[in-house]
Amino acid sequence: MVTIQPHSSERVRHQVSKNDLLAALRHFLPDSAILAQEEQVRAYECDGLSAYRCLPWLVVLPETIEQVQHVLRLCHRLGVPVVARGAGTGLAGGAIPLDNGVLLSLSRFNRILDIDVNNRQARVQPGVRNLAISHAVAPYGLYYAPDPSSQIACSIGGNVAENSGGVHCLKYGLTTHNIQQLQVITMDGEWVTIGGQGLDGPGYDLLALMTGSEGMLGVIVEITVKLLPIPEQAQVILAAFDDVEKAGNAVAAIIAAGLIPAGLEMMDNAAIKAAEDFVHAGYPCDAEAILLCEMDGSAEQVTSDLEQALRVLRRQGASEVRVAESEQQRQQMWAGRKAAFPAVGRISADYYCMDGTIPRRHLAKVLMKIKTFSAHYGLAVANVFHAGDGNLHPLILYDADREGEMQKAEQLGGDILRLSVEVGGTISGEHGVGVEKINHMCFQFQPHELALFHALKRAFDDKGLLNPGKAVPTLHRCAEFGAMHVHDGELPHPEIERF
Amino acid sequence: MVTIQPHSSERVRHQVSKNDLLAALRHFLPDSAILAQEEQVRAYECDGLSAYRCLPWLVVLPETIEQVQHVLRLCHRLGVPVVARGAGTGLAGGAIPLDNGVLLSLSRFNRILDIDVNNRQARVQPGVRNLAISHAVAPYGLYYAPDPSSQIACSIGGNVAENSGGVHCLKYGLTTHNIQQLQVITMDGEWVTIGGQGLDGPGYDLLALMTGSEGMLGVIVEITVKLLPIPEQAQVILAAFDDVEKAGNAVAAIIAAGLIPAGLEMMDNAAIKAAEDFVHAGYPCDAEAILLCEMDGSAEQVTSDLEQALRVLRRQGASEVRVAESEQQRQQMWAGRKAAFPAVGRISADYYCMDGTIPRRHLAKVLMKIKTFSAHYGLAVANVFHAGDGNLHPLILYDADREGEMQKAEQLGGDILRLSVEVGGTISGEHGVGVEKINHMCFQFQPHELALFHALKRAFDDKGLLNPGKAVPTLHRCAEFGAMHVHDGELPHPEIERF
Repeated sequence: MVTIQPHSSERVRHQVSKNDLLAALRHFLPDSAILAQEEQVRAYECDGLSAYRCLPWLVVLPETIEQVQHVLRLCHRLGVPVVARGAGTGLAGGAIPLDNGVLLSLSRFNRILDIDVNNRQARVQPGVRNLAISHAVAPYGLYYAPDPSSQIACSIGGNVAENSGGVHCLKYGLTTHNIQQLQVITMDGEWVTIGGQGLDGPGYDLLALMTGSEGMLGVIVEITVKLLPIPEQAQVILAAFDDVEKAGNAVAAIIAAGLIPAGLEMMDNAAIKAAEDFVHAGYPCDAEAILLCEMDGSAEQVTSDLEQALRVLRRQGASEVRVAESEQQRQQMWAGRKAAFPAVGRISADYYCMDGTIPRRHLAKVLMKIKTFSAHYGLAVANVFHAGDGNLHPLILYDADREGEMQKAEQLGGDILRLSVEVGGTISGEHGVGVEKINHMCFQFQPHELALFHALKRAFDDKGLLNPGKAVPTLHRCAEFGAMHVHDGELPHPEIERF
Repeated sequence: MVTIQPHSSERVRHQVSKNDLLAALRHFLPDSAILAQEEQVRAYECDGLSAYRCLPWLVVLPETIEQVQHVLRLCHRLGVPVVARGAGTGLAGGAIPLDNGVLLSLSRFNRILDIDVNNRQARVQPGVRNLAISHAVAPYGLYYAPDPSSQIACSIGGNVAENSGGVHCLKYGLTTHNIQQLQVITMDGEWVTIGGQGLDGPGYDLLALMTGSEGMLGVIVEITVKLLPIPEQAQVILAAFDDVEKAGNAVAAIIAAGLIPAGLEMMDNAAIKAAEDFVHAGYPCDAEAILLCEMDGSAEQVTSDLEQALRVLRRQGASEVRVAESEQQRQQMWAGRKAAFPAVGRISADYYCMDGTIPRRHLAKVLMKIKTFSAHYGLAVANVFHAGDGNLHPLILYDADREGEMQKAEQLGGDILRLSVEVGGTISGEHGVGVEKINHMCFQFQPHELALFHALKRAFDDKGLLNPGKAVPTLHRCAEFGAMHVHDGELPHPEIERF
């Protein structure tokens, strides 16, 4: 476990005492909305990236937009940094708090405000759980498409902040493609409406900019999501391959055939075995790789797409092809995929989940290369990923109690991310950058591109008080990281104080 | 015709002489890439919004990215403003030049650089015509979806700058939904890569911000567009209504039924008659409104969607429903819609095309209200629009030679835009703001929202040299416009010097 602090060039320094801040907060927040004792704030010290943590200075739990405005205005005036937090399920440490800052939890913003069936939209507060939206609109035959694996727990506000994806994002897009409007409070307490009810609007399009900005530009206090009609039918194919390369090529062939599966997932042998042991999904444990290919739409469309996909998969050399014969079987086939992360958690003391994205055509090549990295560091890697998107989730297995293994896992992860960039991909697909990959941003972007990001950040947050030390590295950090990591092969997180 | 200049608060002042600038440009541009004589630059004095114009000071026609960098670096150093221009077909005056600035034409960037069939992408230069992309990729069974009416002439760079739409954007999205990556040169000459090959990337998402930014943030020098498989089949229904309100309700009912037509267009009686007289599309001239509803996809899907749409249209009281019986008939049905603007041009000396977007549910109400505006000003209005998106294109008929008629047309247009905002819509759907609607931005956005836009602009263009006086008004302009327009009912463009 690692206590994490922003890089010295990103740390916000202020002279405000905790007591003074508490007194000021009590002017507009009830006592029940302020947590200051260590035992109270302990629950907020980390998010889904549990290897890194930091005890927050103070936690506030506002219930109204006006309270959020008051908190931000106060902190802006005093120069106190603020970290916004949804459900805390993020995997890149985007919601890790600061030891001299306020953690602003949106968990009490948990109401669905309006369901507009005719316009297929719902207005929701940021603390509403992802799956709760689909449950609330199911009586109208509608659902909210993006489905992160954590959808039972993660909040829609966090989904927007991280631009979350999921299995069905190949066909239906990421969070950014499924929202219509945001109400945002900027660090100076101003209320800004972003997006609109129309397909396009005048002015700069800030909706995608805000989505995925990891709490750096503003605090999201309301979201209008787009809803889709529940597809009449969904069917899934399981295809097994005796060779990872063949499976990778089959993915490219399905897309090239003009099919747009609702989901197109791949698991390698290590992931197949772990999942099968855990949930007994009926996976073929001797396969080197399996693909799960789901088609949805009208019954006619699904039938015709399935036939086409089966032809492609056979032509690409699948050793076995199975179509779920019932809804129960379909659910079972997915159960293995959805439980893959915890399944791997059962076979390894710790695992480190990466999130690189690569052009689909390089799938097979990158998987081969990951195998050599794995051998080099002596750490096993299980691969589970959104193959259709080229979004890899290599799970690096390690044991934090073994001296140096966590560092090796980080190095192996860094090598995978660097490889992703080298083949024309990116260091993140859907989990965000947070603190986890902030150093790796230095090899994704050039200094003048990072400078543009900083200028944009200042446009929203002139004092740099929102979530400092996340998502976009300073050039100082990159200079340090570049020197340490790229040239000398040293640890990627030199500024982290280790236990 | 109106000579237009930026508002005094937006005008860039510099002391550079034309001869000095010419001498400096000749260091890196051949003579054939510089136009300085009045008869040479006259062709660039306006764009598709031909009522407003301004003779450019100088025109440059670079052929390489390095030349663009040189031009921008030079102008940045000297403080000379620059307006980038594609094919000049824009309808909001976004490419109108400046009498003390450089007009940078991208017309020589006219090559398709790469077609990647497997990843369904093409890399193209900004001067490539929209339709030329679809022609080039047709042999691979692919096409580029956004289809502005001007697609035979407009350039893809201009499409990105204005986030252009078209008939098929209801299903396939606007330009912003159909591009993957941009190469952009910022005003200081830096080369920035925006977007990537993956579904998402790390860092702030600048792709949507840049798209539709009307040449204010950077000069786009390369575009990677997404391609789609050409649908197996497309079929169109023409439905006639004896009442505009019924037609409006039918649009809402089609969407509410869960159908996503490839196009869902509406024309009112004035537009029907004008189009029928011009292209003889076989439209029922006695109908108060017609809908054109196109379905595309696999043969099975189209058949099932058509049946459902026909049921909905009949239930909503269509007086006549026709399905195109051949591809030729389908083309003919569309021909009337596609020629609607020039058709209206035949029956009126001049027309002014508006571009407001409203929530679909208010369609009928807004159309009724436009009728009362039309009577109030004594100017006929023909309505042709993307009904599925709620994107109105009222065409206001007037005669510029008649004293005061152009002003009345502008006032009527302003009233329609204000109404669009009042019902929860926007002043622009797909044409952009340009100079045409810059004043109306003042009632779309609040001062602190405009201030945020300006801060963003500064992040990209610190000296405010790119396309000043377009798209985002200064607060000075709004103060003036607000006082003149909102409170006193005076002319919306007080700063324009009229002939």
